[in-house]
Amino acid sequence: MTETLQLYSYWRSSAAYRVRIGLNLKGLAHSIVPVHLLRDGGEQHSEAYRAFNPQELVPTLCHGQRRLGQSLAILEYLDEFWPEPPLLPANARARHRARALAQLVACDVHPLNNLRVLQYFEHEWNVPQPERDEWVRHWIVEGFRAAETMLADHPSTGIFCEGDVPGLADCCLVPQVYNARRFGVDMAAYPTIERIEAACLALPAFDAARPERQPDAPAPS
Amino acid sequence: MTETLQLYSYWRSSAAYRVRIGLNLKGLAHSIVPVHLLRDGGEQHSEAYRAFNPQELVPTLCHGQRRLGQSLAILEYLDEFWPEPPLLPANARARHRARALAQLVACDVHPLNNLRVLQYFEHEWNVPQPERDEWVRHWIVEGFRAAETMLADHPSTGIFCEGDVPGLADCCLVPQVYNARRFGVDMAAYPTIERIEAACLALPAFDAARPERQPDAPAPS
Repeated sequence: MTETLQLYSYWRSSAAYRVRIGLNLKGLAHSIVPVHLLRDGGEQHSEAYRAFNPQELVPTLCHGQRRLGQSLAILEYLDEFWPEPPLLPANARARHRARALAQLVACDVHPLNNLRVLQYFEHEWNVPQPERDEWVRHWIVEGFRAAETMLADHPSTGIFCEGDVPGLADCCLVPQVYNARRFGVDMAAYPTIERIEAACLALPAFDAARPERQPDAPAPS
Repeated sequence: MTETLQLYSYWRSSAAYRVRIGLNLKGLAHSIVPVHLLRDGGEQHSEAYRAFNPQELVPTLCHGQRRLGQSLAILEYLDEFWPEPPLLPANARARHRARALAQLVACDVHPLNNLRVLQYFEHEWNVPQPERDEWVRHWIVEGFRAAETMLADHPSTGIFCEGDVPGLADCCLVPQVYNARRFGVDMAAYPTIERIEAACLALPAFDAARPERQPDAPAPS
């Protein structure tokens, strides 16, 4: 493949973070195009970006002339287009489990705590910041309690969520833990999640994808 | 396959509705086990159900001894285990598009409007019903505006979301339109979505999966 890969990303977007990890795990050269979600009312709402991504959300992956949205669909695309190393295991049962763990985060935790949701609460309902933060923690705790059970009790949990190879579920879990810490969730209740996160972040593919390593991250104060 | 399939379902859950459509499209015999999401504080929170599904959400598909959660992961599992007729197209680009449309609904619309979210607003924040309903419509309109653009402008939209074969994206779109109507969203702004919905509901697989056709649906008043 000589077509270039460009990822429209925001340093702190956990959906973009998932795709950064996936690209790195595949060893795919790519450039990062920052989209600032707050500046000028949000660059994702500009006409130019909307033409790429009608949902006005990050990430968008450009692969040659293709414009690909939705982080989990992008990760599946990467896995189909560049199968090695795989992001999903080989058998249907294990693939289901990896996807279900990924979707636990990507459907049932993260969308509830997204920037646009918190902006709705602030601007439409005048919900004070402490209540907004409590809302964020509530859904992370709901999700992590279930994920911890699914991971701790299951024989196919290994070094990573599914066996000893990092994959789709880990791409979703690690960014969600980043958000959990940011909002002050006590991670001590989720020892398996914490152990897997540490194993992931020890890998260069995850480390390089961290928010604070991104070109658009603010300089440390 | 002689292992039985049982779907833990609630008649009005749109996540369960997606899987009902998928099972029907595949022609897979299955039984429906109703889980009443409101009675006794929600049967999905019972100890017995939680042992099946630690997220305490419907649907769960039991396939022999396997307990499978997350509607999109279940649909992918069905497609891998019983490949014919396919729920996903053959090439990576088209598969991405089908998944992205499915995830637009399953990640960015439906989780925000779920029962548990509306219960949080009512019980934790005392948000009045009109504001809760407005919230529901807001996210459906956001999602449908983008979906209409993605469907109306794209050469691979056919009778259904992706070509002329009903699949994953249709399994998600039709239940979301049901919710949209229930909450009074004006569907006239989304002619492509309405056209696809009508084409889907003309098929027995979709028709039999409708909420009002379920064993646990209340009798018409």
